[in-house]
Amino acid sequence: MLKNDTILKTLRGEKTPYTPVWIMRQAGRYLPEYRETRKNAGSFLDLCKNKDFATEVTLQPLDRYPLLDAAILFSDILTIPDAMGLGLYFADGEGPKFERPLTNEKEVHKLDVPDVEQDLAYVFDAVKSIKQALNERVPLLGFAGSPWTLATYMIEGQGGTDFLNIKKMLYARPDLLHHILKITAESVSQYLSFQIKAGADAVMIFDSWGGALADNEYEPFSLNYMKVIINNLNIMGHESTPKILFTKGGGQWLDKQLQSGADALGLDWQTNIKQAKAIVKDQVTLQGNMDPSILLSDTKAIEKNVKSIIDDYGHGERHIFNLGHGITQFTPPDNVTCMLETLRSHSPQYHL
Amino acid sequence: MLKNDTILKTLRGEKTPYTPVWIMRQAGRYLPEYRETRKNAGSFLDLCKNKDFATEVTLQPLDRYPLLDAAILFSDILTIPDAMGLGLYFADGEGPKFERPLTNEKEVHKLDVPDVEQDLAYVFDAVKSIKQALNERVPLLGFAGSPWTLATYMIEGQGGTDFLNIKKMLYARPDLLHHILKITAESVSQYLSFQIKAGADAVMIFDSWGGALADNEYEPFSLNYMKVIINNLNIMGHESTPKILFTKGGGQWLDKQLQSGADALGLDWQTNIKQAKAIVKDQVTLQGNMDPSILLSDTKAIEKNVKSIIDDYGHGERHIFNLGHGITQFTPPDNVTCMLETLRSHSPQYHL
Repeated sequence: MLKNDTILKTLRGEKTPYTPVWIMRQAGRYLPEYRETRKNAGSFLDLCKNKDFATEVTLQPLDRYPLLDAAILFSDILTIPDAMGLGLYFADGEGPKFERPLTNEKEVHKLDVPDVEQDLAYVFDAVKSIKQALNERVPLLGFAGSPWTLATYMIEGQGGTDFLNIKKMLYARPDLLHHILKITAESVSQYLSFQIKAGADAVMIFDSWGGALADNEYEPFSLNYMKVIINNLNIMGHESTPKILFTKGGGQWLDKQLQSGADALGLDWQTNIKQAKAIVKDQVTLQGNMDPSILLSDTKAIEKNVKSIIDDYGHGERHIFNLGHGITQFTPPDNVTCMLETLRSHSPQYHL
Repeated sequence: MLKNDTILKTLRGEKTPYTPVWIMRQAGRYLPEYRETRKNAGSFLDLCKNKDFATEVTLQPLDRYPLLDAAILFSDILTIPDAMGLGLYFADGEGPKFERPLTNEKEVHKLDVPDVEQDLAYVFDAVKSIKQALNERVPLLGFAGSPWTLATYMIEGQGGTDFLNIKKMLYARPDLLHHILKITAESVSQYLSFQIKAGADAVMIFDSWGGALADNEYEPFSLNYMKVIINNLNIMGHESTPKILFTKGGGQWLDKQLQSGADALGLDWQTNIKQAKAIVKDQVTLQGNMDPSILLSDTKAIEKNVKSIIDDYGHGERHIFNLGHGITQFTPPDNVTCMLETLRSHSPQYHL
C-alpha cells in the first residue's frame, strides 16, 4: 500500500534502487515552518500533546524535502516517565527536567507501569492522525527511549550530566536500578506496541546515554533491557515490524548489539561505517552516520562527506543514510537539500 | 635517584613487583586538605599561579595515600591559550571560559606562539618547587592539553559544548583550523619541553575532546598534532622522557594512537582493557580505566571493579592503573584507600 517503502525494504535487507534516508529530529527548529507552528502551539510539550500540531510538524520536512524516505512521529522520549508521574517540564533555554526525580528507595519501590493506553493516548492519537495525513506516502517511524536512558533522566532529574546519581545506584544498589529498568522496559514495550497498532511501520529505541556506561555495564544495564523490549514486541505479535536500536557512543559494542534481535543498528559519527559493516556483515541494517555539524558548513564539504559515507559502506542493501545524531537548530535548510540530492545521485551505483 | 620509580619502569615496559597507580585530578576538591588550601589561596587560578600553594596541593594526595606512585603537576590545560592572550577565567560554579575566543579570520591570523618561557614561568617554577619538595619520593608528571582540545576552548570560548563553531570551521575552513592547531602544537611542544627541563619525569597530553571528532577527522585534526608534539620533544632532546597520550572517547582509534610514538595510551572506562591490550600488545603501556563513579559506591563494588580491571589486563608489565577520567569532587577519600589497597594486594600475582 505504501507508495515509497524503500526504507522498509532496506530494513529487511531487500534490494532497492538507492540508499534511503531520514534525518533524526527532521521536524525541528532549523525549519522556519516549524518555528511558525511552534509559535502557535505554545510550548514544546503543548505541541507534542496536540495531534493536529504534531501532525503538521511531522509532515513539514516531507513537504519541503521530497527525497526523504520516512516520517518520524513528533514526540519526546520522556513521555513515559511523565506518565509515571515524575512531572516532565522544559525550563527556558534548558533541556528537559523532572519535578519529582527518584531520589530514594521508597520512591523507587513506588514506581509502577503507567496505564499506557490511557495516559499516553495523545501519542497514539498523533500516530493515527499522522498516518492518515501521510496517505501512504512514506512509512511512519515510531520511537521510544531505552530503559537506561529514561532511567538517567528519572534519577538525575535531567540529561547530559555526569550521571553520578544513577551510577552510584548502579554500583552500590544494582537491585534498585534493575527494578527501575524492569518497570521501564515493560512500559516501553507496551508503548511501542500501541504505536505499532496505531500505525507505526517501524520503531526505533533511542539509547542516547548508553555510551556513558562502563564496558562491563553496558550489556546488563542497557542492552539487555532493549532486548527485553524487542522480545516483548515479538511475542506481542509485532515480529514483522522492523526495530532499530541506537546507542549513542556505543560503536565499540556493535558485536553485542548484533545479538539484540534488532533489524537495524544506528551509528554515530565517531564510528567508521566500513568497519561497522565488517562486524555486522549483512545480518542487520546500519543507519547513519554523518556528523550533524557538517550541515553547518558548505556544499563542498557536504557533498564530500555524503559521498565518503556512501563509498565506505559500498555495495550492499543494508544501509539507511542518516546523521549520527539529531540535526542542529542552526542548520541552513538548503544544506539539507544538498545532502539529500548528493545521496540520491551518488548511491544508485551501489545498488545495481 | 628516585626512591620509587615503578611508574617509569612500567612506562618503559620493564618488570615491576606490582601495578603502579596515580589518579587523574588526584589533588582536588574531594580532599578536605585541598579545600582548606584553596580557601587560603583564593581562586583556582590563584592556586595554579602560586608555586607554594601549587606545591602544597600537589603533595597532599601523596601524604594521604602512600600507595600512590606518582605526583602530577597541579595546573590547568588552559594556561597556554591564556598566555596567548585569550583571557582565561572561571565563572562561579561553571567551567573555564575565555573572554576573547577566536571568532573570526582576522583573530585567527593574529594568533601567535607566546613567549612560553617567560609567560608561563609560573608553571615551570611550580614544577621546580614540587620536584624539590618531593625529594625523589615518586616521579613528577607534567602535562598539557592537546592542540585540538585547546582549540575547542579557544574557538567555542568554553568546554563541553556541541563544538558547533569549531566543527563548522573544520568543515568549511580547514585551513584556518590547521593554522590554529599548528601554532598551538608548537606552543605545547615548548611548554612540555620547559616542564621536562624544570624536572618533570614524564609528560601526558590530555585530548579531552578528541572523542567529539568524526572518525575521518580524528587523525588529521587531533592525533597528527599530538604526533607533532611527540616528534618535537624527541628532537628537542627529550627522547627518553616517557610520553602519555589520552583521547577521552577515543578507544575506537587505539590502532591509530599506537602509531603516535607515545609510550603510553590512556583508556576511558568505555573501553575494554583486555581488548585494548589485544590491539596494542606490549608495544605501549596502557593507563586506566576505572569509571570514577565507582568511587562513589562502596568497598564491595570498588574491590570487585579494581580486581576485574587487573584480571582483564592479566599478566604483563605495561599497565598503569588509573581512573578513566578525573576523580569526582564527591568521592569519599576512604574509598580511594580501598581502591589503592585492593590494587596493591591483587596485582602482584600478575608480576611474578
